[in-house]
Amino acid sequence: MTDETLKNQMWGGRFIAGPAAVMEEINASIDVDQKLYRQDIEGSLSHAAMLAQTKIILQSDYEKISHGLKIILQEIEEGDFVFSRNLEDIHMNIEARLSALIGPVAGRLHTARSRNDQVAVDFRLWVRETLQKIAQALKQLIKQLLILAEQHVKTYMPGFTHLQLAQPVTLGHYMMAYVEMFGRDLSRMRDASERMNESPLGAAALAGTSFPIDRFMTAQALGFREPTRNSIDSVSDRDFALEFLSAGALCAMHLSRLAEEIILWSSEQFRFIYLSDAFSTGSSIMPQKRNPDAAELVRAKTGRLNGALMGLLTVMKGLPLAYSKDMQEDKEYVFDGALSLELSLAAMTGMIADLEVNKKAMKQAADLGYATATDFADWLVRELGIPFREAHHMTGQAMALAEKKQCRLQDLSLDELQAICPDINATLFDVLTVEKSVESRKSFGGTASSEVLRQIAYWKKRLVSA
Amino acid sequence: MTDETLKNQMWGGRFIAGPAAVMEEINASIDVDQKLYRQDIEGSLSHAAMLAQTKIILQSDYEKISHGLKIILQEIEEGDFVFSRNLEDIHMNIEARLSALIGPVAGRLHTARSRNDQVAVDFRLWVRETLQKIAQALKQLIKQLLILAEQHVKTYMPGFTHLQLAQPVTLGHYMMAYVEMFGRDLSRMRDASERMNESPLGAAALAGTSFPIDRFMTAQALGFREPTRNSIDSVSDRDFALEFLSAGALCAMHLSRLAEEIILWSSEQFRFIYLSDAFSTGSSIMPQKRNPDAAELVRAKTGRLNGALMGLLTVMKGLPLAYSKDMQEDKEYVFDGALSLELSLAAMTGMIADLEVNKKAMKQAADLGYATATDFADWLVRELGIPFREAHHMTGQAMALAEKKQCRLQDLSLDELQAICPDINATLFDVLTVEKSVESRKSFGGTASSEVLRQIAYWKKRLVSA
Amino acid sequence: MTDETLKNQMWGGRFIAGPAAVMEEINASIDVDQKLYRQDIEGSLSHAAMLAQTKIILQSDYEKISHGLKIILQEIEEGDFVFSRNLEDIHMNIEARLSALIGPVAGRLHTARSRNDQVAVDFRLWVRETLQKIAQALKQLIKQLLILAEQHVKTYMPGFTHLQLAQPVTLGHYMMAYVEMFGRDLSRMRDASERMNESPLGAAALAGTSFPIDRFMTAQALGFREPTRNSIDSVSDRDFALEFLSAGALCAMHLSRLAEEIILWSSEQFRFIYLSDAFSTGSSIMPQKRNPDAAELVRAKTGRLNGALMGLLTVMKGLPLAYSKDMQEDKEYVFDGALSLELSLAAMTGMIADLEVNKKAMKQAADLGYATATDFADWLVRELGIPFREAHHMTGQAMALAEKKQCRLQDLSLDELQAICPDINATLFDVLTVEKSVESRKSFGGTASSEVLRQIAYWKKRLVSA
Amino acid sequence: MTDETLKNQMWGGRFIAGPAAVMEEINASIDVDQKLYRQDIEGSLSHAAMLAQTKIILQSDYEKISHGLKIILQEIEEGDFVFSRNLEDIHMNIEARLSALIGPVAGRLHTARSRNDQVAVDFRLWVRETLQKIAQALKQLIKQLLILAEQHVKTYMPGFTHLQLAQPVTLGHYMMAYVEMFGRDLSRMRDASERMNESPLGAAALAGTSFPIDRFMTAQALGFREPTRNSIDSVSDRDFALEFLSAGALCAMHLSRLAEEIILWSSEQFRFIYLSDAFSTGSSIMPQKRNPDAAELVRAKTGRLNGALMGLLTVMKGLPLAYSKDMQEDKEYVFDGALSLELSLAAMTGMIADLEVNKKAMKQAADLGYATATDFADWLVRELGIPFREAHHMTGQAMALAEKKQCRLQDLSLDELQAICPDINATLFDVLTVEKSVESRKSFGGTASSEVLRQIAYWKKRLVSA
Repeated sequence: MTDETLKNQMWGGRFIAGPAAVMEEINASIDVDQKLYRQDIEGSLSHAAMLAQTKIILQSDYEKISHGLKIILQEIEEGDFVFSRNLEDIHMNIEARLSALIGPVAGRLHTARSRNDQVAVDFRLWVRETLQKIAQALKQLIKQLLILAEQHVKTYMPGFTHLQLAQPVTLGHYMMAYVEMFGRDLSRMRDASERMNESPLGAAALAGTSFPIDRFMTAQALGFREPTRNSIDSVSDRDFALEFLSAGALCAMHLSRLAEEIILWSSEQFRFIYLSDAFSTGSSIMPQKRNPDAAELVRAKTGRLNGALMGLLTVMKGLPLAYSKDMQEDKEYVFDGALSLELSLAAMTGMIADLEVNKKAMKQAADLGYATATDFADWLVRELGIPFREAHHMTGQAMALAEKKQCRLQDLSLDELQAICPDINATLFDVLTVEKSVESRKSFGGTASSEVLRQIAYWKKRLVSA
Repeated sequence: MTDETLKNQMWGGRFIAGPAAVMEEINASIDVDQKLYRQDIEGSLSHAAMLAQTKIILQSDYEKISHGLKIILQEIEEGDFVFSRNLEDIHMNIEARLSALIGPVAGRLHTARSRNDQVAVDFRLWVRETLQKIAQALKQLIKQLLILAEQHVKTYMPGFTHLQLAQPVTLGHYMMAYVEMFGRDLSRMRDASERMNESPLGAAALAGTSFPIDRFMTAQALGFREPTRNSIDSVSDRDFALEFLSAGALCAMHLSRLAEEIILWSSEQFRFIYLSDAFSTGSSIMPQKRNPDAAELVRAKTGRLNGALMGLLTVMKGLPLAYSKDMQEDKEYVFDGALSLELSLAAMTGMIADLEVNKKAMKQAADLGYATATDFADWLVRELGIPFREAHHMTGQAMALAEKKQCRLQDLSLDELQAICPDINATLFDVLTVEKSVESRKSFGGTASSEVLRQIAYWKKRLVSA
Repeated sequence: MTDETLKNQMWGGRFIAGPAAVMEEINASIDVDQKLYRQDIEGSLSHAAMLAQTKIILQSDYEKISHGLKIILQEIEEGDFVFSRNLEDIHMNIEARLSALIGPVAGRLHTARSRNDQVAVDFRLWVRETLQKIAQALKQLIKQLLILAEQHVKTYMPGFTHLQLAQPVTLGHYMMAYVEMFGRDLSRMRDASERMNESPLGAAALAGTSFPIDRFMTAQALGFREPTRNSIDSVSDRDFALEFLSAGALCAMHLSRLAEEIILWSSEQFRFIYLSDAFSTGSSIMPQKRNPDAAELVRAKTGRLNGALMGLLTVMKGLPLAYSKDMQEDKEYVFDGALSLELSLAAMTGMIADLEVNKKAMKQAADLGYATATDFADWLVRELGIPFREAHHMTGQAMALAEKKQCRLQDLSLDELQAICPDINATLFDVLTVEKSVESRKSFGGTASSEVLRQIAYWKKRLVSA
Repeated sequence: MTDETLKNQMWGGRFIAGPAAVMEEINASIDVDQKLYRQDIEGSLSHAAMLAQTKIILQSDYEKISHGLKIILQEIEEGDFVFSRNLEDIHMNIEARLSALIGPVAGRLHTARSRNDQVAVDFRLWVRETLQKIAQALKQLIKQLLILAEQHVKTYMPGFTHLQLAQPVTLGHYMMAYVEMFGRDLSRMRDASERMNESPLGAAALAGTSFPIDRFMTAQALGFREPTRNSIDSVSDRDFALEFLSAGALCAMHLSRLAEEIILWSSEQFRFIYLSDAFSTGSSIMPQKRNPDAAELVRAKTGRLNGALMGLLTVMKGLPLAYSKDMQEDKEYVFDGALSLELSLAAMTGMIADLEVNKKAMKQAADLGYATATDFADWLVRELGIPFREAHHMTGQAMALAEKKQCRLQDLSLDELQAICPDINATLFDVLTVEKSVESRKSFGGTASSEVLRQIAYWKKRLVSA
């Protein structure tokens, strides 16, 4: 084959037009980063105001720039702005439009700035806002869980280990376990937000600038705690994106656990809950079917967060400083991770708000399988001072008897129990019902309703300032 | 706080309208799966033809259905089709339009079929096509590498280990290493394509159907080797997607290595190659700058494949059979992985086709650092029968001398060498130049030009049938 | 603070001894790669034999080397070999011992070889063997599944979608879905094995060698199809490790799905199966408890395969050719992945072999929830020619009536059904039982026992040559 | 084939002994979790003390238990303890030994406790200690970087973007970018440590206990801020492990970037630094070779952190509450991640402490390629008020001229420059040298030595309390 033939073959399909088309396709980020338009304009407005204040540009130039940028903001928000792939990214799209609107003075905006610090500040602003949105969404979810928990501090259900009945608990207690998880997620989002709240604007290409800029002024105007301390790091750092995705992956994992419970609990085999119409889908032909689609989708979204986190960790591995084009690939991961998380949180909040609890089925399930066997043994230890090992042995005997009689532990007669251990008295029965078992676990954080109410009160208070 | 206040707060932002909006947003897949429109119509056409052939529907019904589907295909391809999020996915969008076009007979199309096997067949068709496209793209890249290799079987350059000069090789030899890698990728894509080439159509919801369908007929019509053998597996299997992503992740890793080389080689410090204008970007202010953007983006795309693979593996973990809604999340990973890979292959092919080699710089670099020290030692072993360890010791002495004199090994005089070992004769110099070193490595697969030409010939031939 | 103080502080804890200790700890691979001792000796034996055959070394030297290596093999297998971290890796440990045993002639073994191709061949041999072991383990698991399936071609159970009852199937059919999955895994292991079956020995450091070696001879002796074709690729390729991990991750995902079913099915809520004592653990205090520990551990092992795959993909990303020390990190991933997979397959095979099926509970669950509603509708379409949509509507009416009467569909009287559609006749009842529903799904791959038996026969035959 | 034959075939290889052997192998965690022996004993001591204090057990029993546990601690630390796989895990191994030592009273230790909260507290103690060790290691690394930075605030080098020379910076400035990164890592470790510092002890199996325990007492004794608030969450939470791995993965990514620089900089092509003997390896035959093995291994370790993080995220996905056996798989990820990170930090600290800087090569590289072109343009803007765009154009003209004359910008004559723009005067030359360019960038965080010294001072101070 000749070189020429090869060349002709090479640009098949999508890339028929040759190198230029390939390069545009792989290089242009405007389809993705146009999401940053508001942050880009905000950043530019602050930068321009600072340039004027420090006399680097004229006040009159600033006014023209500011006027132009506000027009562009409006154009974009009203859908009147035509984004161009030729102009690669959001920065160039806005810059070009600014030139068209106000002429050469537009060029002054780029004084003491580079695309490297510009995109860094835009993206930080976006991530900071997202962290706040996610935090709000977490608070909403926690509130719904608190409401559900409060309604069900006395709704008995099986506590499982290994998906096998272990000990009875309450739905209120169960839901509070998720409050703890989402509470940690909230605290991680807050930490991430605090840590990243530094302004990279003014780092310029990578080395800072010789113009007498005031980085504190722009930092303050954009709501940052302070400017970043090292200009090279400022343009090569994407920790804030990765920390968001890390916290997001943990949160998605928590959501997947709760989603799994919802799927199990709404199965025919469990029947613990009914999902509302809004969050399940039926089948035209099987009207009894109530597919927990929303829960399944929430469970699946874990994959998107894990994938996004792994993807961006891969991108950043081994990159020498400072800016490399690889880093342009940061946004899609974060945008996608953020959307997945927001959607999952909203869907979960909705499911929790709308679900109907089948108390009877829960209680029945808790009554199965000698869930109070531990209580039996603990009573022997506590009341009769019998050593643990012996107590366990006696409990085993009682259960063997109950199994033979196909009854529950509490359905055995006192005589039958005394045949196992003569010291047993009628107060033993007090600990054998599901209700008594639950209410006896008053250790801090335990399942007794008084303890769960204490947890709820704690979280209601904490949420105010969280 | 009251429940009512909470409810009011709950649906902030995007989900102002409450549950319905959340559910639509998380549930609707039409924005993603409309890519499958052609496969969906193909699948439906084959299914309808089979239903008619097996007399499950009337020939006249088939004709109406077929006519309607072809109109829809045309509408979509011409951009005249309005996709609706209310109709959730591509299947429902097309079905609804078919009803509008041909009336109630449209309903007969869904006889002996369910959305579960329908989406399985659509998605398989898409992945199969993609595997073929990727295979073609790999062949193009291999061809370009072969051209470059053939031009440079005598272009000497340093062979590195640990990024330290180890032994001289040729650029031709180097490029053939990548041919081997992409050759394995090609073979993996072929294996994946063969393994997944079974038609799930007819598995229905999960259990098969009582209608007397002929699955071999639809399988054949759609170019599948045979129908799948188990209907439950047919609707719950996504191996074909995962195997594509696995093979894709390996391929992306290979691309990232070649991209890294291109970035290093086009740095000021190496200057081994110049990238064409098409695949690098300059800077308005630093005209000497030639940023290897395309190579950096290719390197970064590894992240997308790794992320997509991890994401889908996460989704599928622990899902009980058969279909779960989680699996709806399969497409975005594959679509994104496929696009990233196609783009990366096209960009890499372009870069290889366009790059300019700086033979002089390569040769100079190969001449540095006593790259032929191994040849020196090997000569002592081979020609004088000196044991390895002693030979190494003598080589060390020679290098110490050369270092002291700041010259190359071959610049030492015979006298000087004989002072180290009296048996050394002038034929030693024959192995000390870069050229001689390279040409002496004639072992199968070695760097000698004869060997590299043999490798090139092998691949030219193999590519014809690959 | 002074530099001195810092220096003193720096090497705390484990690294008290300073740089040397850190370097030894991070650099030494002997704790990990000693697993390769047999492969290393095999490779060396073949290399030495070839060196003698091609007259590069004397026959007598070969005999000494061969004798020494065999002694070392015995020493290691009998636990008499002292591995030393000072000697870094398995290659140096064996080489040093060989010198001690046979003196300077040991040095001749390393002629025309380098550690780079040596470790490549060792590791390939190990992976090839592992692929064979995993393939065998997969065959064992498939055999157990076939046995279980054959016993249960008429054991009725619910077929789920979204974990909601969809249509009745049989346990035999269900198990055959897993046979398909593990069958694909087997075929992937075979493909991987075939693709990687090339010998890198003779690639030397990276460029091949000037000694007249015969790479075909060593390739054949070690059971490789042929030598690799490019010496640079030979020492920088780890595709074989990654392809094994990719195939392993898919297989682990399949195992996690089956493990999930086992966990669900052995819960109090499902009671579909009982696990044997061997594969579950009890609780001293709750004798009724039967924790499916083995299944949970198998489910969890997915994490190890995903982690190993992601880890090695991360390591290889962006590495320039040829060998880099990063690649020393390849083994731990593969060793760990292989062990996890072997264990999981063995545990799953054991669980499948030992589990006891609760046919009654399965059948009862299949009878719930109008699982044959689809059959009702299909009968209307097929027998009365009623259009699908109308048939669905009628089915809905029948179910509403059954729900009201709290009975199954088949418990409605013919009169009641004819009130919905006068044309309905008694043959409708034939399709409404679970048994009839199942047996009617005779489409290829469907759940009818005849179809499942056909699938079983196919796999029994295929397994012979797989 | 018969069932019997299959059974016989099934337990090949390692599992020859059948189910029991497989189960032991997959179930036993003692090989891994024996690392927790100290934490396990500490936790038990605190628990026993509290049981005595709250009169749940006798003071005399406590004394026996305490005495026994201290003996066991000593036995383990002195290597006199025989771990048994039959006893599965560290908890049972210690418990069994305690029984042997002190008799039945040992059984009282388990009052009001379960293995679920026991392992949770052990593992938290281990992770908390590790977080502290990693924090210390980070501080050591930062200190070394500060020392290096301080020595090199005037060591000029190229600042790269896209690995292309962009603007001159100093090595001090460069190193301070890494200080920022590792500073963020440190802060993340601190946050993680604070968030997880709650004691799960007393959560018992999952529901709390009816014994009147005092969880605040044990929390305090073990150095926890407070007890956890929800007993179900206490035994099912592994956030602390995942948050450590997340922070660790980010830190490893930073290390991989610095490792990459070290590898590049010690290549023949850069020659910016020489690694010490301690952290590089030579080659017996190529004495000039100085392989940056330690840096390569550090770079590769990123894979282990990414893999561990992904692995554990996979394990936890979709697990219903409370404890599942899957969670036993948490430790290996964390132990391996911690070791990898500790080693990498120690190796990097050592490399930074020992490396030798080639100031001349750095300076020369900074002088190449018109690195001060931006300064040229900025001067025109700042001093002559020339609009940016025009200034850029003039800079281009000057560079074209310099390229033609093969000289640097500052080597052009004033006449030549005035031919481009008559207003240019000699003060322009002040900004064209590398030194002047660097020193002019005095913006906050910029590369001017005064700024870098300010950054160094900031970090020295901050480190005291970090």
